[in-house]
Amino acid sequence: MAQAYRELKSRFHQCSAIEGALAVLQWDRAAKMPIGGAAARAEQVATLESMHHELLTAPQVEEWLDQAEADADTLPQEDRANLREMRRSWVHAAAVPSDLVSALSKAGAACEMAWRSAREQSDFAAVLPKLTVLHSLIQQQATVKSEALGVSAYDALLDMYEPDGRSADIDCVFSDLADFLPSFLDETLEAQASRTQPMPLPGPFPVDLQKTLVADVMQAMGFDFDHGRLDESMHPFCGGIAQDVRLTTRYDVNDAFSGVFGVIHETGHALYELGLPDAWAGQPVGLARGMSLHESQSLCMEMQAGRGRHVLSWLAPKFADAFGGEGPAWSVDNFIALAQRVERGFIRVEADEVTYPAHVILRYRLERAMLSGDLILADLPAAWNDGMRDLLGVVPPNDRLGCLQDIHWYDGAWGYFPTYTLGAMTAAQLFVAVEQAIPNVNEALSCGDFQPLLGWLRAHVHESGSMCSVSDMLTQATGKPLTADAFKAHLRARYIEGAK
Amino acid sequence: MAQAYRELKSRFHQCSAIEGALAVLQWDRAAKMPIGGAAARAEQVATLESMHHELLTAPQVEEWLDQAEADADTLPQEDRANLREMRRSWVHAAAVPSDLVSALSKAGAACEMAWRSAREQSDFAAVLPKLTVLHSLIQQQATVKSEALGVSAYDALLDMYEPDGRSADIDCVFSDLADFLPSFLDETLEAQASRTQPMPLPGPFPVDLQKTLVADVMQAMGFDFDHGRLDESMHPFCGGIAQDVRLTTRYDVNDAFSGVFGVIHETGHALYELGLPDAWAGQPVGLARGMSLHESQSLCMEMQAGRGRHVLSWLAPKFADAFGGEGPAWSVDNFIALAQRVERGFIRVEADEVTYPAHVILRYRLERAMLSGDLILADLPAAWNDGMRDLLGVVPPNDRLGCLQDIHWYDGAWGYFPTYTLGAMTAAQLFVAVEQAIPNVNEALSCGDFQPLLGWLRAHVHESGSMCSVSDMLTQATGKPLTADAFKAHLRARYIEGAK
Repeated sequence: MAQAYRELKSRFHQCSAIEGALAVLQWDRAAKMPIGGAAARAEQVATLESMHHELLTAPQVEEWLDQAEADADTLPQEDRANLREMRRSWVHAAAVPSDLVSALSKAGAACEMAWRSAREQSDFAAVLPKLTVLHSLIQQQATVKSEALGVSAYDALLDMYEPDGRSADIDCVFSDLADFLPSFLDETLEAQASRTQPMPLPGPFPVDLQKTLVADVMQAMGFDFDHGRLDESMHPFCGGIAQDVRLTTRYDVNDAFSGVFGVIHETGHALYELGLPDAWAGQPVGLARGMSLHESQSLCMEMQAGRGRHVLSWLAPKFADAFGGEGPAWSVDNFIALAQRVERGFIRVEADEVTYPAHVILRYRLERAMLSGDLILADLPAAWNDGMRDLLGVVPPNDRLGCLQDIHWYDGAWGYFPTYTLGAMTAAQLFVAVEQAIPNVNEALSCGDFQPLLGWLRAHVHESGSMCSVSDMLTQATGKPLTADAFKAHLRARYIEGAK
Repeated sequence: MAQAYRELKSRFHQCSAIEGALAVLQWDRAAKMPIGGAAARAEQVATLESMHHELLTAPQVEEWLDQAEADADTLPQEDRANLREMRRSWVHAAAVPSDLVSALSKAGAACEMAWRSAREQSDFAAVLPKLTVLHSLIQQQATVKSEALGVSAYDALLDMYEPDGRSADIDCVFSDLADFLPSFLDETLEAQASRTQPMPLPGPFPVDLQKTLVADVMQAMGFDFDHGRLDESMHPFCGGIAQDVRLTTRYDVNDAFSGVFGVIHETGHALYELGLPDAWAGQPVGLARGMSLHESQSLCMEMQAGRGRHVLSWLAPKFADAFGGEGPAWSVDNFIALAQRVERGFIRVEADEVTYPAHVILRYRLERAMLSGDLILADLPAAWNDGMRDLLGVVPPNDRLGCLQDIHWYDGAWGYFPTYTLGAMTAAQLFVAVEQAIPNVNEALSCGDFQPLLGWLRAHVHESGSMCSVSDMLTQATGKPLTADAFKAHLRARYIEGAK
C-alpha cells in the first residue's frame, strides 16, 4: 500500500481519536456536567476542535491526498472509498480558515447560551444580537465552502450533514410533500374524529419502573450494553462513538409513552452506530453515511416499527406489566390510538409523523431565506408565524413556542433541518423493502423480536458505513432512489386506512 | 508584560484545556464507560497525551522560557511564580522523549489490564512480564528526569507528585515514624482492648438513604454542587478540574460508614480544588501544590475532623435519622469506638490512621529497592511479606491481599506512595495550627459547621495554589517545616488518651 495513503490513515485515525474525545465531552456536557463547568468545557472543546482542524489541514495532508489519489488504482475498493471520504473531510476542513473555525465555535457557544435564556423568556430580541454575529459567520462559512465544493452556499452547509445532498433534489420531494400534506392532514383529522377516542394511560409512572421497561425494550431491540449506555438529559440525543454509544432520554412521571418512544428512537440511531463496520473504525469510510440515513434508522425503529400495530401489540402488555395497569386503557387498540394520535401543534419535537414534515419544510424555507439574505433576521418571528399558518393552520402564541423552540440555528447547525424529513421518507422506503424481503418481519415484531428487521438494516445499511453514496445505497437496498411515494403510502395506510 | 511570557501563558492555557479534557475522559472511564469502550478510550487518552507533550516541548517553548526568565524582574511576583512552575513542567516534559512518553502510556495501560486479572486470580507471575516491561521504562524515565532535574532517580519520580520532594527528607520523618509505630501500635491495641468494644451498626443501609446522607454531609462541608458532582466507581477518587470536580465513592449496603467516610475524604480533596485561585485557572501556578498537600486536605477532613469526637457527635444523630436507627449502637460513644477502631490488616485502603503509615513505609522502601535494582521484581511477593511481618506483624495469605492490592506500580505511578503519609503528618500539623488560630473550631464542628475549618484552609493552603513550595507554605501556616511530632501527638491523644 502506498506510503502517502498509509500516512493519511494514521492521520485520520488520530483525528478520529480527537473526535471520540469530543463526543465524550459533549455527552458529558449534556448529561452530567454541573453548570459551573460550562466555561472550562467550552475551552476544552474549542481547543480540541482547533487541534483537530490543524491536524486535518496541515500542508502535508493535501500532498498525501494528491499522491494517494494518483496511485488510487493500486488500492482495494474499500480503501478507494476511504480515500474519497478523506478528500471530502479535507475539502470541508481546508475551506475554512482557522480563525473562522474558532470564531464559529465561540459565536456558537455564546449564541446558544443567550438562546437558552431568550427561549425561557420567550424574548427573540434578546438573542438577536448574538444570532446576528453567528449568522454572519455562517454566511462566511457557506461562502468559502461553496467555493471549495462548487455548489451553492446552502448546499455547502447541507453537505456537512448530508454528503452530496442538494437542495434541488430536496425541493422536488419537499414540494411533492407540501402539496400532499395540508389536505392529507385534514383527511387524517377527520378520520381520527370518526374513530373511538383514545383513553389517556392512567399514571403516575414511577421513573424506576420506566427505567426497567426501557432497558428491556433496548435489549429486545438488540442494543449492546457493553458498548453503550443510557442516561438522562434535557434534550434526548444519541452521541458517543460506535464502540461506546451514549444515548439519553427524559422521563416524565406523568407520561410513560414519551420516554419509551424517545428511547426507541435513540436506540435506532445507536444500532446504526453499533452496526458500522469494525474493520474501518477510526477511518472516514467507517462512519455513518450522513444525517438523513441516520434519522431513517431511528424512524424505522420508532415510527415504522415502534408506533405500528405489530410492535404495539407486544408493547401494550409490557407496559401493563411494568406499571401494574389493568382495563381498557391498556389494550392494544388504545395503545394504537395513543401512539398514532395526530394533532396540529407548535412544537417540532412533539409532532406526530403527519405534521412533522410541515415543521421541517418551514425551517428549510426560512433558513435558506436567511442565508441568502432574502429574510432579515429581525423578521424571523413574523415569517415563522406566517409559515405555521400556511403549512399547519396554527399560529404559536409566542416565540418560545415558535422560532425559539429549536437549538439548531442558535448553535450554528444551519442546513441540518431537511435531513429529518429526508430520513422519514427514507425510513418508509426502506421499510417497504424489508417487508418485501422478509415477509414475517411484522410477525416477529409482534413478539418483540427485532432481529429480522435489525439484521436486514445491518446488511443493507449499517455495514456499508460510508462506502457509497446515500442514493446508491438506497437504490441497492430498495431498487430506486428516494421519492416521497413510500412515505405517503405509509401515512395513508396508517392514518386513513387504519391498517398499520 | 513581555511577549515571551504572554506566549507561554497562552500555550500553558491550551495545555490546561487538554488536561481538563483528559480529566473528564479518565473520570468517565472509571465511573461511566461501558467495558467495550476501553480500547477506543485508551487511544483517545494516548492521542491527547501525546499532543499535550508536543505542545509543551515544542522548540519555541524553551526559547520563550529563556526570554521570559531573562526579563523575570519586570514581572509581578505571582507571574514570576507562574514562570517558575512553567519551567518545572517543561523540564519534566522535555526530559522525556516522545517515544518514551508513548511507550510508557501503552505499557502502563497493558500492565494495568494484566494486573486487574492477576489480582483477581492472586497470580503475581501473570503480571510479572508486563510489569517487567513497564519497570524498565520507568527506570528510563527516572534516569532521564534525574539528569534533567539534577536529583537521584527516585527523587526525579517523586518530584512529579511532590514538587521539590526529596527522599532524604522523607527518610528522616519516616524513620522517626518507623521507630515510633510498632510499639505505639501495641500500646494502642492494648488500650483499645481495655475499653468497651464497639457494637456494629445494624444494617442494611439502603443506598438511596446513603446518597441523601452523603449529599447532606458534602453540603455541610461546603461542597458546591454547581462546580462538581458525586458518582460511583469501584475505586473512589477525586478527579475533574477545579471548576468541575468529579468525586466518586462506593456504597456498601451493609456498611454505611465506609461510604460516608470515603465521601468525606474525597470531599476534602475536592474542596482544595474548588478553593484554588480562580484568577490563575489554566496556569501552572493555579494548580494544587503536589500530592502530599492534597492528601493533607482530605485527611484534615476525614481523619483530623471527621473521625474525631466533635464531628462524630454531629454525625451520629444524622446517621440515626437517615436510617431510622435507635439504641446504643447509634450513640456518639459507639460511633467514636467504630470510627477510631485500629486493627493490623493487610489492605492499605482499609487501614486506620495508626497502621496506615506502616503500609506506606513498606511500599516506599520496596519501590526504591526495585527502582535501583536492589530488589528484583520476581522477589517482590516475598519481600512484601517480610516487610509486612516486620512493620505490621501480619503476613498476607496471598498476593491479592499483598503486593497485588494497589494499582500504583502496575499503571506506572512510581514515587507516589510516600505522599500519603506525608499528607497525614501535614494534616496533623495543619490541624494544630487551626486549633490555635480558631479556638472554637471544634465547637463549630460538633454542630456540623465546617466553615471555620474550611475558611482557614482556604486562606492558608487553597488560595495560594502553587505560589510557593510546600515547605514554605507549611512554615507560613504552622510556624515550622514538616515533622512527625504533631502526627504522633495526635495519635497519642486520640488512641491512648481517648481525648479526640
